[in-house]
Amino acid sequence: MAYRDEKLDEEKVFKDPVHRYIHVRDRVIWDLIGAREFQRLRRIKQLGTTYLTFHGAEHSRFNHSLGVYEIVRRIIENFREEPFWNDDERLLCLCAALLHDLGHGPFSHSFEKVFDLDHEDFTRKIILGDTQINAILKRVDPQFPQNVADVIHKTYFNKLVVSLISSQIDADRMDYLQRDAYFTGVSYGHFDMERILRVMRPKEDQMVIKESGMHAVEDYIMSRYQMYWQVYFHPVTRSAEVILSKILHRAKELYFANDFQFKLKPRHFESFFEQEVSLDDYLKLDENVVFYYFHIWQEEDDEILADLCRRFVDRDLFKYIEFDPADQYQQLIELKESFIQAGVDPTYYLEVDSSSDLPYDFYRPGEEEERLPIHLQLPSGELKELSRQSEIVESISGKKRTDHKLYFAKDLIDQLPDNDVSKQRIYDILKG
Amino acid sequence: MAYRDEKLDEEKVFKDPVHRYIHVRDRVIWDLIGAREFQRLRRIKQLGTTYLTFHGAEHSRFNHSLGVYEIVRRIIENFREEPFWNDDERLLCLCAALLHDLGHGPFSHSFEKVFDLDHEDFTRKIILGDTQINAILKRVDPQFPQNVADVIHKTYFNKLVVSLISSQIDADRMDYLQRDAYFTGVSYGHFDMERILRVMRPKEDQMVIKESGMHAVEDYIMSRYQMYWQVYFHPVTRSAEVILSKILHRAKELYFANDFQFKLKPRHFESFFEQEVSLDDYLKLDENVVFYYFHIWQEEDDEILADLCRRFVDRDLFKYIEFDPADQYQQLIELKESFIQAGVDPTYYLEVDSSSDLPYDFYRPGEEEERLPIHLQLPSGELKELSRQSEIVESISGKKRTDHKLYFAKDLIDQLPDNDVSKQRIYDILKG
Amino acid sequence: MAYRDEKLDEEKVFKDPVHRYIHVRDRVIWDLIGAREFQRLRRIKQLGTTYLTFHGAEHSRFNHSLGVYEIVRRIIENFREEPFWNDDERLLCLCAALLHDLGHGPFSHSFEKVFDLDHEDFTRKIILGDTQINAILKRVDPQFPQNVADVIHKTYFNKLVVSLISSQIDADRMDYLQRDAYFTGVSYGHFDMERILRVMRPKEDQMVIKESGMHAVEDYIMSRYQMYWQVYFHPVTRSAEVILSKILHRAKELYFANDFQFKLKPRHFESFFEQEVSLDDYLKLDENVVFYYFHIWQEEDDEILADLCRRFVDRDLFKYIEFDPADQYQQLIELKESFIQAGVDPTYYLEVDSSSDLPYDFYRPGEEEERLPIHLQLPSGELKELSRQSEIVESISGKKRTDHKLYFAKDLIDQLPDNDVSKQRIYDILKG
Amino acid sequence: MAYRDEKLDEEKVFKDPVHRYIHVRDRVIWDLIGAREFQRLRRIKQLGTTYLTFHGAEHSRFNHSLGVYEIVRRIIENFREEPFWNDDERLLCLCAALLHDLGHGPFSHSFEKVFDLDHEDFTRKIILGDTQINAILKRVDPQFPQNVADVIHKTYFNKLVVSLISSQIDADRMDYLQRDAYFTGVSYGHFDMERILRVMRPKEDQMVIKESGMHAVEDYIMSRYQMYWQVYFHPVTRSAEVILSKILHRAKELYFANDFQFKLKPRHFESFFEQEVSLDDYLKLDENVVFYYFHIWQEEDDEILADLCRRFVDRDLFKYIEFDPADQYQQLIELKESFIQAGVDPTYYLEVDSSSDLPYDFYRPGEEEERLPIHLQLPSGELKELSRQSEIVESISGKKRTDHKLYFAKDLIDQLPDNDVSKQRIYDILKG
Repeated sequence: MAYRDEKLDEEKVFKDPVHRYIHVRDRVIWDLIGAREFQRLRRIKQLGTTYLTFHGAEHSRFNHSLGVYEIVRRIIENFREEPFWNDDERLLCLCAALLHDLGHGPFSHSFEKVFDLDHEDFTRKIILGDTQINAILKRVDPQFPQNVADVIHKTYFNKLVVSLISSQIDADRMDYLQRDAYFTGVSYGHFDMERILRVMRPKEDQMVIKESGMHAVEDYIMSRYQMYWQVYFHPVTRSAEVILSKILHRAKELYFANDFQFKLKPRHFESFFEQEVSLDDYLKLDENVVFYYFHIWQEEDDEILADLCRRFVDRDLFKYIEFDPADQYQQLIELKESFIQAGVDPTYYLEVDSSSDLPYDFYRPGEEEERLPIHLQLPSGELKELSRQSEIVESISGKKRTDHKLYFAKDLIDQLPDNDVSKQRIYDILKG
Repeated sequence: MAYRDEKLDEEKVFKDPVHRYIHVRDRVIWDLIGAREFQRLRRIKQLGTTYLTFHGAEHSRFNHSLGVYEIVRRIIENFREEPFWNDDERLLCLCAALLHDLGHGPFSHSFEKVFDLDHEDFTRKIILGDTQINAILKRVDPQFPQNVADVIHKTYFNKLVVSLISSQIDADRMDYLQRDAYFTGVSYGHFDMERILRVMRPKEDQMVIKESGMHAVEDYIMSRYQMYWQVYFHPVTRSAEVILSKILHRAKELYFANDFQFKLKPRHFESFFEQEVSLDDYLKLDENVVFYYFHIWQEEDDEILADLCRRFVDRDLFKYIEFDPADQYQQLIELKESFIQAGVDPTYYLEVDSSSDLPYDFYRPGEEEERLPIHLQLPSGELKELSRQSEIVESISGKKRTDHKLYFAKDLIDQLPDNDVSKQRIYDILKG
Repeated sequence: MAYRDEKLDEEKVFKDPVHRYIHVRDRVIWDLIGAREFQRLRRIKQLGTTYLTFHGAEHSRFNHSLGVYEIVRRIIENFREEPFWNDDERLLCLCAALLHDLGHGPFSHSFEKVFDLDHEDFTRKIILGDTQINAILKRVDPQFPQNVADVIHKTYFNKLVVSLISSQIDADRMDYLQRDAYFTGVSYGHFDMERILRVMRPKEDQMVIKESGMHAVEDYIMSRYQMYWQVYFHPVTRSAEVILSKILHRAKELYFANDFQFKLKPRHFESFFEQEVSLDDYLKLDENVVFYYFHIWQEEDDEILADLCRRFVDRDLFKYIEFDPADQYQQLIELKESFIQAGVDPTYYLEVDSSSDLPYDFYRPGEEEERLPIHLQLPSGELKELSRQSEIVESISGKKRTDHKLYFAKDLIDQLPDNDVSKQRIYDILKG
Repeated sequence: MAYRDEKLDEEKVFKDPVHRYIHVRDRVIWDLIGAREFQRLRRIKQLGTTYLTFHGAEHSRFNHSLGVYEIVRRIIENFREEPFWNDDERLLCLCAALLHDLGHGPFSHSFEKVFDLDHEDFTRKIILGDTQINAILKRVDPQFPQNVADVIHKTYFNKLVVSLISSQIDADRMDYLQRDAYFTGVSYGHFDMERILRVMRPKEDQMVIKESGMHAVEDYIMSRYQMYWQVYFHPVTRSAEVILSKILHRAKELYFANDFQFKLKPRHFESFFEQEVSLDDYLKLDENVVFYYFHIWQEEDDEILADLCRRFVDRDLFKYIEFDPADQYQQLIELKESFIQAGVDPTYYLEVDSSSDLPYDFYRPGEEEERLPIHLQLPSGELKELSRQSEIVESISGKKRTDHKLYFAKDLIDQLPDNDVSKQRIYDILKG
């Protein structure tokens, strides 16, 4: 029997807290899950630093990848008697679903910003490069790895297949909303996925939604909205990300400095600093490795690096206040000056960070590309874009909302003597 | 105001998936949670290698420690109008609950067995030693750290206080059963904790249960029983533990060997190998550090160490079959011989592992001490031990059940040529 | 001890699927629950005819009344250390919460419309009249029944007390949304009540919400919105209500007709027909009685009454189509004419029904009074009306949305011969 | 297309709180659900008087019947690619599942005992008699009604089909345990049905369970055990049943008495009293009708009938104490004498009631027949009866446990003057 058609003797199941069971029948899927590049996802948290805000959010990208696979499996199962895709497309969908996040590294968002990387590039490289994953996919068909990469990259010719993984209401989003809600424990993030799966209809190059399912989709959009503001953009999480970025910047600066000797050299980071990250380097850098360095660097001679690492490890984060850099440009300059006078380096201890959100057609950190809008199919067969039918969605659609905050090491300022002039000035500015 | 009585300006809450919210009002508790030795628990998984079987089980001991605190807080809240303990005992209970697992290290069970350690010793050392935790507790009262340690060590004079943390139906067990069920996603592990908390009655030196709550307690006992056999003793988890232990043994052997040069020296393990683990050494060794070594050691020159590390990192585990070493002693000897002949070192690639369970008064890995039985209080006021009143509990009480398995590197045998004599012999023995 | 202060020897609990347990400690509350007028609520469904659409929705108003009581109990418990209300207000709140729906009759909405009744009048009459409820309340204080009635009627001087029971985010709504979601099984209706209760702050004459709780309140508003459109205004439910109203109209018409002899005289309905409903008459008419009549009336000689009763009992409902009586006035007239020509009485077999909804400050069927808007309390102490702070709420606030449908006995038309002219004309009109 | 093969144009779904959705695709099933004899099940509570103990338990047998259908549908769906049953057996299974409880009347348990009826007889009569149900089934095939009746009656030749509906682990039990737990709100009753459905294997004349699923089945057995003792045999529920039985006895006695004139004649009960219940009589007597009589009979001239009806309607139940009629035979005689002396008729105000339970192979009220034991299939293919493999099940298997209670109208005794001799004697006996 061709490898692509091989079935396991008996279906395997993974117990999953979100979807109850994840079912695997295809040998190819089973092999992919066992591949080392896929197992590596166990060592990368799904939500980066969010566990420092919501202690339950310690789940890995491995979890989420299985979940996306399972949702796509169920969608295909629902349509198993439909003629519109053949068996090859089926396996392609499943593989793309399983592997879509393969290129994520530790704390992707911060690493991507600091080192100008794109995790999607690495997803492609893992699929097409000299990896266990690639070897498995090639056994299906020499062209198969490229097809999987194309689906994930949204360039595959069959847009219906693409839309299962990447659209405004795709398996990716449906899994992470539910999963992140489950592990954080928040009461948002619940919607009736079973209903949504049942009202999906394939229509040329996308999945559309029967109009009778509009309210379930509204609920999904609202969940997304709430999860963004309550979980994904939580200021405590962002505070941890600020520190993380500062560590990376500081280590890079010291690496290029002539006069600094690391006790523990940043070997795993060097190619990142040098902007020449090979696939092998990339795969070696998982969260444990990052944490190991931060752990050891607490004892480096550079006070700033040691202090920032201690802050991250001990969760001694920066405080924050509302701060709009556009309106408060002058204050920001003065703050920086006062920090310098107070002997606190503003480059590392002061940061303005903004998060923004387009609630309906918004992007997710690291997913800046446009996504297909959601279309409802009216009983007449006509398609209508969701926000034109739903007042709730219309109300939150396309309105960019930005939340600016100033993060700073309040403890360093607090410990100055009360008669310190710069301390007084800093608090005067902060109080507005 | 005395530090012990200080309240936060506003109650703080942690969102918790199991108990919904964890409430903190006491300044002392807030400070303890922020202490670095407590934050360290975020870097130690609650269930060790279980996440390799149940992918959701990635939660940390930090999670569980907050949960135990919360349950004790609710018990005390229920009895807030009762005269039987004063405010000092209240804070003592809360601190002991929060800190009871403080001394756990990475993969405690395996480390304790291989290096002959006891995590409870380290809990005591952290509480009494030169730590942030100790400094906070001492601010309450110079005697307070010792009291907290005594409660956790079960030597505190007030046994009622002890029983909240350590008995057959204590806050520790009630939290971990529910929490481990939640994160693994299994359907066991549910019982009506709210009811149990309501039928608890303080009685001299222990909490007893009103007879009308017997069925809720039966349900709790059955949950425990199911969780042990379905989750805690799962053979795949044990297979990962076998490999973990083998890595530690191999690294120790190489460390003491004269002729081996590590590429990455086991500095963080040295004091473990030398059996002279200081508190500082212990605290430095979290799971990230262990993983870092295993990660790097995949490239050591010693083939066995490198291979075992790769297995652990890539989750390429040993297979297992039922095997009773008492009945099958001869076969075991022959198997080892055949492994040697086949060129596969049985010391590292063959292991018999047993788990046992006393379903009612059983011990948990690493918790060998006896625990107080559960007593029901009849309407007459008389106390009766649970298993004398409940047929179900009686039926599973005290019966030791052992499950023996042989774990081995089946792949190494499989790759031998089919005409290899030792291969044939090994399979003959395994087939019985 | 004064009756008002009497506590039960031991707290009683009711197992409740929504709030887990309902706790009763006050003798007065216990006695009220046992009163016959309160037990009567077991015989009146919370959602009227909704069980014909959502088969799980068979729960009674007894259920809901206990739930509202429990929520108010928890709110008061949260504020037990606050000085702003004394112990008397506490009992008053609890009684008003428990009794607020006491005057509901069977299928209130339809009965109120057909017979021009107001269930709130009957709530007041039960509380103030010669009933077991009144006797219990009077034992507290001769003025107490009036106070309870005033709270429910929203005329009580302390508006804070009133707002617990009747505001845009009161215990009544919080219970019914969750309860109706639970019993129907829909995935809407969930919000984080525990969080909302924690961010409530008493402020002069109302409960306000700390701004940090805004998202939880948004979630509650969205739940309400979804429940209205998905459950409360479901067209199948309305179709059953149309038939119910038609039965009541027909029975009344026959009662006043000189020439009709009921086999089962509508004795329990007579005072309703005569518009002279005494409290005693009202209390006697529960859902079982109504159903009994409809059951028996299936065999009355009047074909219309018998047929309508059979439809209701066997759930053989009218079909519906979208139909706007303002735009389609002419068609409606023609439809009625064609029905007459076809020998089908349009008075009983054709009806236009509209539901409307003001999603945020909307009214609920039978609750036309205005309700206080929700106010957020900003950190500065300033109050701000919710829709001015929340874009989502703003978007759905105050927009009246109406849904018009035409209900008709399609089967009676279908069974006409295909060449019947009126049949053809009816279908021409319906197809638009 | 043959009626048996007709599919609905589009699958219909019912929102179900327990199984989320109930899916209907077959025209036959759709028609059966719409039949008046099936709709009648909406007017009969699943758990009789249990709602007087657990207020949430107001759900009807209509609910449960849909649930059993859905479980059988899923089992068949799981095996859709297996050759062991043809399409006709499929429809037969679904119909039998849907209709298995069709013959239940109001408060079946009490009615069956008092009037010596068997609801299964009526199920058969409805299926085979002149009913809408029968007409639908006959359209499938003239033999089909008989087949459906045979499956329900367990006489159908294909025992595998029978075992889906009637065995120790059938769809009936799996639905009612979960459903009754859901509506009562108790925390028992949960087990992993999805897992059980997956480990079921057809084996000749029964469904057997793969050994790896044993723990899920243990959990199911324990749920059943807990539900029996916590819910089904709850003494408050039994107290309501005692009163209900007494009402029926009293009404019958008065009916046969020469000198009593009912204000409301028991027309609907006459054929029950006369032991000549026709199918038509039986179908007319739903719970609303029973309640209507009890409601009106509160005003009958017979004090006992009026009082008992008032007790039932107002939930003014008998109190109870432990009482073993075998050991306390003499006391019972004396109690009865004292009641007579006190002027309280012991025939109606004193009752000993026993419930018994065989936890594993026990019967359910009204289901006395033996049921097939559960068999595990070992990896070798060998079958083993569950209790021989599971210690927990073995421990509770076959042990009859009986719970005797004495129910009596304590209020009637209490209101006697304290110096009344019989009052004193009664309390002496009761105190033992």
